Amino acid sequence: MSDIVRADGRATDQLREVTIERGWSAHAEGSVLVSFGGTKVLCTASFTNGVPRWLVGKGKGWVTAEYAMLPRATNTRNDREAVKGKIGGRTHEISRLIGRALRAVIDTKALGENTIVIDCDVLQADGGTRTAAITGAYVALADAIEWGREKGFIAKKSTVLFDSVAAVSVGIIDGEPMLDLAYVEDVRAETDMNVVVTGRGLFVEVQGTAEGAPFDKRELDRLLDLGVAGCATLRDKQAETLA
Amino acid sequence: MSDIVRADGRATDQLREVTIERGWSAHAEGSVLVSFGGTKVLCTASFTNGVPRWLVGKGKGWVTAEYAMLPRATNTRNDREAVKGKIGGRTHEISRLIGRALRAVIDTKALGENTIVIDCDVLQADGGTRTAAITGAYVALADAIEWGREKGFIAKKSTVLFDSVAAVSVGIIDGEPMLDLAYVEDVRAETDMNVVVTGRGLFVEVQGTAEGAPFDKRELDRLLDLGVAGCATLRDKQAETLA
Amino acid sequence: MSDIVRADGRATDQLREVTIERGWSAHAEGSVLVSFGGTKVLCTASFTNGVPRWLVGKGKGWVTAEYAMLPRATNTRNDREAVKGKIGGRTHEISRLIGRALRAVIDTKALGENTIVIDCDVLQADGGTRTAAITGAYVALADAIEWGREKGFIAKKSTVLFDSVAAVSVGIIDGEPMLDLAYVEDVRAETDMNVVVTGRGLFVEVQGTAEGAPFDKRELDRLLDLGVAGCATLRDKQAETLA
Amino acid sequence: MSDIVRADGRATDQLREVTIERGWSAHAEGSVLVSFGGTKVLCTASFTNGVPRWLVGKGKGWVTAEYAMLPRATNTRNDREAVKGKIGGRTHEISRLIGRALRAVIDTKALGENTIVIDCDVLQADGGTRTAAITGAYVALADAIEWGREKGFIAKKSTVLFDSVAAVSVGIIDGEPMLDLAYVEDVRAETDMNVVVTGRGLFVEVQGTAEGAPFDKRELDRLLDLGVAGCATLRDKQAETLA
Amino acid sequence: MSDIVRADGRATDQLREVTIERGWSAHAEGSVLVSFGGTKVLCTASFTNGVPRWLVGKGKGWVTAEYAMLPRATNTRNDREAVKGKIGGRTHEISRLIGRALRAVIDTKALGENTIVIDCDVLQADGGTRTAAITGAYVALADAIEWGREKGFIAKKSTVLFDSVAAVSVGIIDGEPMLDLAYVEDVRAETDMNVVVTGRGLFVEVQGTAEGAPFDKRELDRLLDLGVAGCATLRDKQAETLA
Amino acid sequence: MSDIVRADGRATDQLREVTIERGWSAHAEGSVLVSFGGTKVLCTASFTNGVPRWLVGKGKGWVTAEYAMLPRATNTRNDREAVKGKIGGRTHEISRLIGRALRAVIDTKALGENTIVIDCDVLQADGGTRTAAITGAYVALADAIEWGREKGFIAKKSTVLFDSVAAVSVGIIDGEPMLDLAYVEDVRAETDMNVVVTGRGLFVEVQGTAEGAPFDKRELDRLLDLGVAGCATLRDKQAETLA
Repeated sequence: MSDIVRADGRATDQLREVTIERGWSAHAEGSVLVSFGGTKVLCTASFTNGVPRWLVGKGKGWVTAEYAMLPRATNTRNDREAVKGKIGGRTHEISRLIGRALRAVIDTKALGENTIVIDCDVLQADGGTRTAAITGAYVALADAIEWGREKGFIAKKSTVLFDSVAAVSVGIIDGEPMLDLAYVEDVRAETDMNVVVTGRGLFVEVQGTAEGAPFDKRELDRLLDLGVAGCATLRDKQAETLA
Repeated sequence: MSDIVRADGRATDQLREVTIERGWSAHAEGSVLVSFGGTKVLCTASFTNGVPRWLVGKGKGWVTAEYAMLPRATNTRNDREAVKGKIGGRTHEISRLIGRALRAVIDTKALGENTIVIDCDVLQADGGTRTAAITGAYVALADAIEWGREKGFIAKKSTVLFDSVAAVSVGIIDGEPMLDLAYVEDVRAETDMNVVVTGRGLFVEVQGTAEGAPFDKRELDRLLDLGVAGCATLRDKQAETLA
Repeated sequence: MSDIVRADGRATDQLREVTIERGWSAHAEGSVLVSFGGTKVLCTASFTNGVPRWLVGKGKGWVTAEYAMLPRATNTRNDREAVKGKIGGRTHEISRLIGRALRAVIDTKALGENTIVIDCDVLQADGGTRTAAITGAYVALADAIEWGREKGFIAKKSTVLFDSVAAVSVGIIDGEPMLDLAYVEDVRAETDMNVVVTGRGLFVEVQGTAEGAPFDKRELDRLLDLGVAGCATLRDKQAETLA
Repeated sequence: MSDIVRADGRATDQLREVTIERGWSAHAEGSVLVSFGGTKVLCTASFTNGVPRWLVGKGKGWVTAEYAMLPRATNTRNDREAVKGKIGGRTHEISRLIGRALRAVIDTKALGENTIVIDCDVLQADGGTRTAAITGAYVALADAIEWGREKGFIAKKSTVLFDSVAAVSVGIIDGEPMLDLAYVEDVRAETDMNVVVTGRGLFVEVQGTAEGAPFDKRELDRLLDLGVAGCATLRDKQAETLA
Repeated sequence: MSDIVRADGRATDQLREVTIERGWSAHAEGSVLVSFGGTKVLCTASFTNGVPRWLVGKGKGWVTAEYAMLPRATNTRNDREAVKGKIGGRTHEISRLIGRALRAVIDTKALGENTIVIDCDVLQADGGTRTAAITGAYVALADAIEWGREKGFIAKKSTVLFDSVAAVSVGIIDGEPMLDLAYVEDVRAETDMNVVVTGRGLFVEVQGTAEGAPFDKRELDRLLDLGVAGCATLRDKQAETLA
Repeated sequence: MSDIVRADGRATDQLREVTIERGWSAHAEGSVLVSFGGTKVLCTASFTNGVPRWLVGKGKGWVTAEYAMLPRATNTRNDREAVKGKIGGRTHEISRLIGRALRAVIDTKALGENTIVIDCDVLQADGGTRTAAITGAYVALADAIEWGREKGFIAKKSTVLFDSVAAVSVGIIDGEPMLDLAYVEDVRAETDMNVVVTGRGLFVEVQGTAEGAPFDKRELDRLLDLGVAGCATLRDKQAETLA
């Protein structure tokens, strides 16, 4: 895209090294340790037969997500939210985003009256924790659905996941759009955007924020293109992992 | 834009009736009762000379916002967050959005070591509460800044607000992009988007979510165009009110 | 009562201007914006068919109230109780007072197994917020009961409200008993009393507190007389509004 | 007052057996175990040299109170407020009442920059816990003040307490005014009133509530007379204990 | 054991004066005011027919305990946990210990589907509050069980308590093992241990902590011997009280 | 010790496979991923120059620990404590235990006015999480101290850690003492004990609990011997890792 070389040697349109390690946890019905460079997120999917009371008898399942960060996942230690006795705004916002992203590709009727809770715990943070979480959570979710199918909680031939979903951050730094920002890039970005895109290339979520100067339509378009391309690479990575 | 007539008789690219009543509160340094149709939000700006401890001595001011809804602002009563003892994810998310939107047009150096807290309390909700809140909050903020200038807390000739900011919701209903969704439209929308745009037409925030089917780039573009046009109308309304 | 003229020009036995605006909210089954001078309280009554679990099957209804203040209802901003994560003593105390006042004039058997929650949110405070809240809440309650009757949840000819109820503050300032204290008077009062009186002139609640010097029986009697007269005026105002 | 004999054999104008045991706690600067019949309240006064930050340098002291009940002080067990994580409305209300009652008889200038916290913990409840608490708290407060004087924190000859204070409940049962209600009487009372009266016979607080039918002025007067007489007996008891 | 005489004149292997006053509370099904020297703990046992939902239908009962301290039980005042809005680690830990100790000697099948909650509230603290609480709680528990038997909730001839349980603290001070530490001794102890022992002399719980230097096996043995002997004396005291 | 072979093929006196991976986290001053068989705990040590306010100027440092479990570390998912808004008793108790264990081997004077917070987050649980946490935390602590020394916050030649510390669980199953219980063993154990032992073989903490039948002195001795031997093996493992 441009000749700029980033601090870690990447091209502007290049993802960091992405790894998706399935079956990381011995207990969860689906689990993944996903890394986007120095960002490491443990995603576990917990499958329960049955749904919350308000959904009983509607023939539909429920998928929800919780995001959290270990106190020393970051460069300086943050107090635990459990110790503070309340969950911060950022945590709430990201948990809600992950849940929406996953629900966009799931047929809750086909899931049946089952609940899947995805926990995304950031073990180490280096930018893009929410996008890594979504990307990994999709794989853990897929595994939990297969577990449910094997146990007979989900019909054998149903299509529960009708598409895949991945996410990536993009941003403008010194006027240049860049893909998958590391923490040192994130703090310098004038505009910061997260895009959540399905395997077929459709948008589930577009969240762009001007951190410095507001941005115009042309910049927005360049960021969206970059994000869609990055998500396509992540989709291939997910498919390969699940193969 | 199209020949479709909406439930309340509006064209697809038409705002609801918007009113911005300045000086609603006797106590606040800036205050506005803003309405977008049936949505009524009371925005008050509280000016304090001085900044939070972590900002002292940096020669910069601080602007923050809190959003809340009265229990019976909606069609059925919601329990108070104060009674539940914690603030929900949606409330946190919107408070953060309003704060970011306002900080995008303010020069905190020119504000000096002063703090302005904007409270946006929804008295009646009919869709678009966050966008009405941002649009009204800007006017309350402008008034609080003038108050601070008159009291001598802010330099006489400084430009504290270098642009204005407004926000509006857009969405796709039955395949048709529409501006400023009322509640009955909002629940039917396949895609829901909020755009925050400065007076000069630049984006501060773009938040689009597929509630039903994911959306493609062409739909996204149509929604953005609609939002930018709506915000321009709101900008004129704000300017007229402040004149 | 005396020749003293108060800061706002009132006689010692004179109420501030009182307005009761019915149907303020589009959603609530009963709603009132009540003002006692600069004090403005939004009272909404939410009607639900059914009662809390502990009352089920007893053939009786339930009426309760919650009082709160917007952060900038007062001269300086107060932190939100939702943000602090707990409700203060004063808020609890006033919520309980309003609930008791309303329950004193309602026949819960005639109400049937229905619940009415009255929310009293102070939009602007200038003394006497709890008494304005009770006075307005009665009107909102009456409207919600009529709504329930029209919907068939309450028997057509039953007498649910067997009396009306209103409240006013009285106090002694510089030795002189005065009716309906504004905030600047309230802070100067040696004795502060709230009386809650039914339409028939009977006491529901008498709460007198010596803020400065303790008071004697003669002073108490003068305050009570003043309060009863004030409540009679408010009763007429309520009746007129409901007519 | 009448020929009625109460369940426990008392006349209508008779207090239950009242005991005030000073120096109950080895650690507190003032402490009292007060009983009104089956109601037992442990009142401890904690003296600290210095005042809360907001009072520093104003040459005045601070007196505050906290009221609480052991889980099994009552006939059936109540969950601990510490376990529930919040303090109930009733607890807040009574804590505030006790604090106001004590501050009504103390000269905070004479107290100097010292803080006294009174804890009133109900060990066993049988009606009138708040009035027993006030009556006992006064004695504990007096002892803590003398302790402060001996330690040199309070000037030798100053008059810190310019009056004493006591409290008692009164109520109307079957149309008959009665003094110092036990629990079985309290639940049957049509009207329930607490009066807080100084040693000189002046009112500090009058809180009357119609639990059943609203009450008229004549009933109110009879209750007040009964309360004032009861408080005079308690004042003598306090004086005797402190002698 | 040694010729050392302690500050209060005791031998190293001597308990403080222990009193167990049964039936202290008028309301609880079992209640005891236990004192170990200056430590006074009120233990009440609340009997409820029925069990928590998760135990229903299993034919077993449930015994649990809660420990707390009045704010001025100690030499300086501690803030109430209810006011702080959360329970501290120490409180939790001791509550759990007391519950485990009591459950070790109860046959929950013989108890039947009944629940007993033991509240241990420290009225005055002078070291060893948790061990006094366990020792007293056993007696209150025994009384509550007899109450349940008399009311017909427990089978007439069943053996619900198959052993008794008591507890005592031991510690090493200046190299010398000592029994039942008072507060001034506790703060000086190099090693601090609590032993919970049944009437038959078996261990239920051994909790030893090096406060200063770590300890060796020989010291541990000497402490255990001392603790077992102390618990045997307490067992006799309990039996005598219950006789 | 006996011919019994355990479910996983171990001898009764054999530890599970123990791994201690240093430098697991890129951000923390010391970090270890420790595993005892299927139990995996991430221990991070956060070094701060300076101490909490109450320690300032005393020339001493502060070491504290926090323990937590990821929601799906266990076989079924547990709700997050941050979501529940409070920390459970078990979590508090273990956090306090880890802190005490580490403070037993550290010379806080030599540490100087520095604070080290150790976070022990259980990523996967299979019994013995608290003992694995202590064993790993010691290594993370040692690394953080060396970091502080290199940065010049700690004197070059001082001995901050005067001993090492490790911990292991022991228990009696079917009458047989066993070392380092896995979860399936833990739930079957009649007696459960955790021992915390220094590198020199001295006890820091002994916590034995009868889960089923109470235990006698002979059984206690056998458990202690087993625990001391297990901790000696862990000490060698720690030393090897730090070499």
